[in-house]
Amino acid sequence: MKLYSYFRSSASFRVRIALALKGLPYDYMPVHLVKGGGQQFSAEYKAMNPAALVPVLQDDDGGVLSQSLAIIEYLEETRPSPPLLPVDPAGRARVRALALSIACEIHPLNNLRVLGYLTKTLGVTEEQKNAWYRHWVETGLETVEAMLAGDPRTGDFCHGDTPTLADALLVPQIFNAQRFNCRLDHVPTVMRINQRCQTLPAFATSVPAEQPDAE
Amino acid sequence: MKLYSYFRSSASFRVRIALALKGLPYDYMPVHLVKGGGQQFSAEYKAMNPAALVPVLQDDDGGVLSQSLAIIEYLEETRPSPPLLPVDPAGRARVRALALSIACEIHPLNNLRVLGYLTKTLGVTEEQKNAWYRHWVETGLETVEAMLAGDPRTGDFCHGDTPTLADALLVPQIFNAQRFNCRLDHVPTVMRINQRCQTLPAFATSVPAEQPDAE
Repeated sequence: MKLYSYFRSSASFRVRIALALKGLPYDYMPVHLVKGGGQQFSAEYKAMNPAALVPVLQDDDGGVLSQSLAIIEYLEETRPSPPLLPVDPAGRARVRALALSIACEIHPLNNLRVLGYLTKTLGVTEEQKNAWYRHWVETGLETVEAMLAGDPRTGDFCHGDTPTLADALLVPQIFNAQRFNCRLDHVPTVMRINQRCQTLPAFATSVPAEQPDAE
Repeated sequence: MKLYSYFRSSASFRVRIALALKGLPYDYMPVHLVKGGGQQFSAEYKAMNPAALVPVLQDDDGGVLSQSLAIIEYLEETRPSPPLLPVDPAGRARVRALALSIACEIHPLNNLRVLGYLTKTLGVTEEQKNAWYRHWVETGLETVEAMLAGDPRTGDFCHGDTPTLADALLVPQIFNAQRFNCRLDHVPTVMRINQRCQTLPAFATSVPAEQPDAE
């Protein structure tokens, strides 16, 4: 398999965690999102992924997949062991809802192109941009905290005592939150789980600094 | 089953379509997102869904589910017929990627609370807010168009000749786009599929105007 990735992209980070948790080797194909106006906009890359986003996974049969959650679900279906989703439909729905609470409610508001629109098109100040960033992270994580703290199915990890799709989404989001100095003292369950994840090599080796294209 | 829904919410609209495609009856539980500051913020509702978002599905066994995509995946797992995902993993990944291209790249930027932040906190004008709305819809749908037009797996619907999860996401997004006068002449495949969907009762009965809480 080949993973088209940018070291700092949290969507790429999610897939790197899933691949590592499943023990799957892959070729790392760096796509620099900033240099030269962004390599993701090259005709070659857009032929593979018209969204001009990372990550893209190319499987050994040549199949090309985009969208981090769709890629992880595909890995789960084609390489089921170890599982990243529980067995019961209600548990699976809970793990997916936690993942989507990050993927749909927090991350999309804070990616590069949205921050670019705020400063370049709307002319907001650096301070307003950072406040926007922190607002969505801090309120979004407050929701995730409530979902975790209020549910007996939360264990060492987001759902039970083994890592799932939800943890693969949570850790990159916390990484970003810390990078942008977001408040995190109001989400103790989130932070406990984040710390627990760091003890696993699959998470530790997937961080941006450990990637071949890290700067 | 009970569906907590707001007639105009496109995330609710997605689940209504999925329920209708599967022929599943349910009790419609209206949650008004605007009246009285928003019924989704009541303590009772937030106990059920800390995110204070619609939709929520309550299954007959009492299980409570949030996040529209997680709910539809749950319906697919517990009521598999007719299927809303193809059988092959690559096809499933494509349908999910199409759905996520709407759920993660377009919709989150244009929901009520984000538009509220733009006008109330950042003080952007009505005109700037509408330009923001159209920008993310028009560029996001351009990506979806490229994903559809450039792939032989596209049929009468987003994937093949029967409706899938991707169509359940597409139709509510086009409904919103039309409501906000977005440009749509650059996405002919999207619009062809949208029109095809309208011919099915499952889509036609799920539109906002047909809901018990429609205004």
